[in-house]
Order: sequence, then C-alpha cells, then structure tokens
Amino acid sequence: MEAPQFLDLNPAPRILLGPGPSMVASRVLRAMSTPLVGHLDPEFLTVMNQVQQLLRYVFQTQNELTIPISGTGSAGMEAALVNFIETGDNVLIGVNGYFGERLCDMAGRIGAHVDRLERPWGEVFDPDEFSAALARKQYKLLAVVHAETSTGALQPHVAEIARAAHDHGALFVLDTVTSLAGLPVEIDAWDVDVAYSGTQKCLSCPPGLSPITVGSRAREVLRQRATQVPNWYLDLSNVEKYWGEERTYHHTAPISMNYALREALRLVAEEELPARFARHRANAEALWAGLEELDLPPFVPLAHRNPTLTTCQLSPTIDDMVARRQLLNEYNIEIAGGFGPLKGKIWRIGLMGHSSRRENVVLLLAAMKAITAAV
Amino acid sequence: MEAPQFLDLNPAPRILLGPGPSMVASRVLRAMSTPLVGHLDPEFLTVMNQVQQLLRYVFQTQNELTIPISGTGSAGMEAALVNFIETGDNVLIGVNGYFGERLCDMAGRIGAHVDRLERPWGEVFDPDEFSAALARKQYKLLAVVHAETSTGALQPHVAEIARAAHDHGALFVLDTVTSLAGLPVEIDAWDVDVAYSGTQKCLSCPPGLSPITVGSRAREVLRQRATQVPNWYLDLSNVEKYWGEERTYHHTAPISMNYALREALRLVAEEELPARFARHRANAEALWAGLEELDLPPFVPLAHRNPTLTTCQLSPTIDDMVARRQLLNEYNIEIAGGFGPLKGKIWRIGLMGHSSRRENVVLLLAAMKAITAAV
Repeated sequence: MEAPQFLDLNPAPRILLGPGPSMVASRVLRAMSTPLVGHLDPEFLTVMNQVQQLLRYVFQTQNELTIPISGTGSAGMEAALVNFIETGDNVLIGVNGYFGERLCDMAGRIGAHVDRLERPWGEVFDPDEFSAALARKQYKLLAVVHAETSTGALQPHVAEIARAAHDHGALFVLDTVTSLAGLPVEIDAWDVDVAYSGTQKCLSCPPGLSPITVGSRAREVLRQRATQVPNWYLDLSNVEKYWGEERTYHHTAPISMNYALREALRLVAEEELPARFARHRANAEALWAGLEELDLPPFVPLAHRNPTLTTCQLSPTIDDMVARRQLLNEYNIEIAGGFGPLKGKIWRIGLMGHSSRRENVVLLLAAMKAITAAV
Repeated sequence: MEAPQFLDLNPAPRILLGPGPSMVASRVLRAMSTPLVGHLDPEFLTVMNQVQQLLRYVFQTQNELTIPISGTGSAGMEAALVNFIETGDNVLIGVNGYFGERLCDMAGRIGAHVDRLERPWGEVFDPDEFSAALARKQYKLLAVVHAETSTGALQPHVAEIARAAHDHGALFVLDTVTSLAGLPVEIDAWDVDVAYSGTQKCLSCPPGLSPITVGSRAREVLRQRATQVPNWYLDLSNVEKYWGEERTYHHTAPISMNYALREALRLVAEEELPARFARHRANAEALWAGLEELDLPPFVPLAHRNPTLTTCQLSPTIDDMVARRQLLNEYNIEIAGGFGPLKGKIWRIGLMGHSSRRENVVLLLAAMKAITAAV
C-alpha cells in the first residue's frame, strides 16, 4: 500500500463569523503549540488547577467540579445528561431550536422518558410554562438552552426557571454553549445545577474541549445513582477523580488543547467579563443596525436577541447558497445558513470572542452590501 | 468574583519516555497552530479526506470508515464497543492487563454479558484459547488488546484470533492504541473488523483524537441494530455521515487537532511504515540490552515483548517513586511506574514515534545508571 503524500497545510485566511469555530487569537495558537509534558506531570496538574480556577471565573461559580470535558460541546451536553439520568427517569426539555432537539435525542438514548416543552424556532419560554409543566409530573431533570445557536434567540429569566425546577425537586441543566464568556452567565447567582459549553464559541479557543460545571445538588444525584453511568468516557464520578485531589488516571487529557484553553481563559480574565460582554453587545448592535439598512432584518425580536449570534431574515431575491459561497470565496468570510425549519430563510452570524471586532462588522456589512446589491 | 491572573505557560522541557503522550515533532506543533477554518469549510473537508487517506495507510486498510473520533483513545475504545453491542449481547474479552479490564468495564456498562478470558498480567494468549471459548457460547463480539500498555506484552497471532472469531460468527475488535504506527498493524490482512488507537503514542501527535477503522462486517452489524446506539457523541452511524460524502453536521470537529494529526500522519508517510517499524525495533533493542546491563531486566519474554513500550523489573533496592521523581526533576525524563498487580514492581518506558530516538535511549540509560548506582 503506497504512502499518500500531501503538501503542507495552507488554508485560506478565513474570517470566521459563523456559529463557531470563532477566530483564535495568536496567543492561544502559540500556547497550544508549546511542547508537551505528561498528563500526570506535576506541571500539568498545575495547568489543570489553573484551568479549573479560570473556568470558575467565566462560569461565575464556586463549584469545585468545574472542568473541561475531553470532547467538543456535544460531549459536554451528553455528560450533563448521562451522569444524572437513569433509565426510566422523567426528563423535561425546552425545545425551541435544534439544540433542544438534540438534548431530547440524547436523553432518549439514555432511556429517559422525555417530555418536550415546545416553542417555535426563534421564540423563547416564559418561566411560568416550565412551572406549569413541572407541576403536572415529577421530573428528575429540566434542561434548557440559554442561547439557541440554531435560531439566535436568548432565553431570559434563567434564574426563575431554575427556581421552578428546584421548587418541584428537579435538577436544572443549562446549555451555555453559545453564551459563555460572551454574555452574562451566572451559575451560582442563578442557581444552575449543571452547565456546559464549548471552547470554540465566545471563548475563542479551538474546538475540542467542553467546559462543564456541576453543583452540589447534581453531585449528590450522581453519588446516589442506583446504576453505573452507562457512558465510561463521560462518567464524571471517574473524571472528577482525575481533576480532583486524587489525580487517579482516567484517560489521557488532551494536553495541547488544555494549554490552548488556559490561554484563551487568560485572555478572558485579562479583559474581564463586564468589558467583554460590553464589547460583544456593542459590536452586535452595530451589526443589527447595518443589517436593518441592508434590508436583512434581524430574525429575533430585540427583547430576546442574542448578541453573540445574530440571525437575519433573507429576502426572496437572495440565493442563500450562492451568496454565502460568494462571501467565502471572494471575501474569505464564513457565515452560516439556517437549518431545519429555518433552512434558506435566515443567515447566522457569529460575533463571538476574538471574532467580535468592529472591523469584522464593517467588512461583513460592506461585503453583504456588494453581494446583495448585485442580485 | 475576581479574575484570576496567571503567568505565561513555561513548562519544563520534558523528554517523554512514558506510555504517552510521546514527544511531538515541531512540524506537528507548528501545523497545529495554523489559523482555523470552519468545520464545514470546503478546505477543511479536504483536510478530513486527507486524514482519512493517511489513516488508511497506517492501518493498512481499504476500509472507507476510517476516521479520528473526537476524543482520546478511551473514546475510541468505547466507540468500538458501543456501536456494535446491544443490551444482552454476549461479549468475550481477553484480559491480560489494565486495558482488557477497561474493555470489560465499558462493555458491561453498555449492558453486555461479558465473559473474560484471563491471563496473568504480562502474558499473552494462544489463539486456541479463544477458539475454545468461542466454541462454548455464541458471542457477538471478541475484543483483544494488541499491545497492553500496562504490561508491555504484545499479542502475537492476531490473524488467527480474528479467524477464530469469524469462524464462530463474532466480530473481532482490536485495541491498537500502543501499536499503531510503531509496529506492524495489518487490519485488512489480519481481517480485523474494528480497530482503534490514540494519537499520543506512536503517531506522536498530541492526545485528543482516536483513530478508528471499521470494516464491512461491523458496519453491517451497526446497520442491523435493533436499538439506537445509546451514546450520541460516539454514534458512528451519525459520525460517518459527517466524515462521508453527505457531510451532515454532527459535532464540531476539533480543527486544530485534525491539523496536527494530518501533519503527524504525513511524517509517518514520509518515513514509510517499514522504516518506522525498524527504527522502533532498533531503539527498543538498544534499550533492552542496556536494561539488562543495569540489572533492570525486561519484564516480558523476548518472544512477545513490545518494542514500543518496554517494561523492566525493579530490584528491591530501588524506590520506584523516588527514582522516577529524580529522573523527572534532575534529568527532565518522564517514564512511568506499573499499576494494578505490577505497582512498584516494574517501570514502563515508551519509545514511541518521535520519542524513539537513539539519543533518548542513551540518555535514559545513563541517567538510570547514575540513579540506581547511587542507591
């Protein structure tokens, strides 16, 4: 069998304004390429401790069990379910977009009885809807998406939903994939039991890790399980021993990805969260104003519009695929289309982390103007 | 909550001679730090195709479904089981070390009836033992570890074991975590149905991905499942759509890790497998000769000793922890101790991928001589 030969990597210099990955700062790329130490080396254990401390800052939590899962955001989502659900458990999931659907899919595979609380894609929930549903049946867990990447809607009143869950004896799981480090996420203040995210969104670290934080209520549920966690790789009762004081070998942590995450988190800490949120907000508002002018109005009403990921409506004169291919090929700009019920109807524009910069907004609007004017 | 501040990364320049991660060539580190493109960008799809082609070369297979799972080696191990086992299936596992144990643990969590074929740690199996066990009961799947990282034993006669499995209608799964790209692994010639590995061993890529290859017999079993794969993240029926022609979104692939893997695989292809295997063998033999001289004789008999990971016996005068700490702190050399029944009794020395170099052997032996002489 002949050895294949390929040239050096030489990718186009993309400007990443889709739903992730976002652009990665050169400091993060440099840190990632630091020569490796072993995964049980005392120096790596220090890195792990620092990553945990920095993650607690971005999650705004004192939760001891705050770590990066060694997989992408979807692995974090699955970890947030499989550790706390056992076969036959009742689970309630808010579904107003693709990632709510995915939560249902995952929970169903674990053997949960899944009830869906539904809203059309792009809308958000009223906390009272959850209270009413939680009152009708005893649920083990309620899961809700904070910022739906498929629609651009931002769920408000998270603390109220958490309270409703707890009032009815359910754990509250929050998907913060597209919100963490781009807009306020207050795990302790909101009393969220489990939250997870991805590294490739507002943290602007390459994809490959999934930060998760687990509070004491959820840890107690994990401890009290009648059955083993069916998923070995994501079993937090073992993973926490590696990240905790015991340092028991579980799997080989992705060293370089943790280097990268540490550096991405350092950048967040240096900027500080309030300034970071303000930057995301300001650039999003500039984008929204520009989109209105281009007759590509934002899809989600201002009241629950997500500043880290904007969706805009396409006029029928625009060919979704052709226009996005033009943006990519002629301007090196990546944005994304809609999918599911929104396919061909919206674009999804991420201004996340290092991608959230004024020059990107101005360039994107100019390129969009040229492309849509030519139609 | 105050933002934590940490200094720049500045890890010690370790010489990684443990069971992984192995050292990473600067070309791989550089490729990994290439700015990102999107995970559905046509340019990344090209990278994915190239990675698949290169993986087929190292696995020596034509299997279409040959991809890196987006997690470390343990995720690959779990993927190799969870996709092909359903609740109640009979599974036979060869257990002659820690990773055989782990296979049992994972298979049991999936709901399989697990039978163990056991051998003391450090020994290997005779294919007839598997034939006999397979004749006693109908098994869905037989899993065996090629190179046991916990013992340094290399399982010979893999093709015969595969034949025994197929003669009895079982799938054959092979763990090639510590063997792939360091010694001959012949997926097609041996007729292995599923094999998985890790990137951080003989491929000398940072940990974070797990190459897996799946043959037609196993794909048919996946297609014929009565139930959904319980593990969403590792469900190959969805993962293969992302890596195959359809390019259906599943999860965001770890872009940078795939850049790194591509470059690590290019290095393998440039060296070519026969030369690479000869290098691993020659350096291992030099190590073995030196260990004999130091009165640290190899633990595994020559006939089934693994050249990529050597285990040596400790004399009672050596304090395992103290000596290894000295190697690390005074010489920047990482090796590993034994665990389970071999704790305190052996050292584990990896000469894998970029770490398999004459200068590392000479330095390690000199450092060991100084340390053990001082006892």
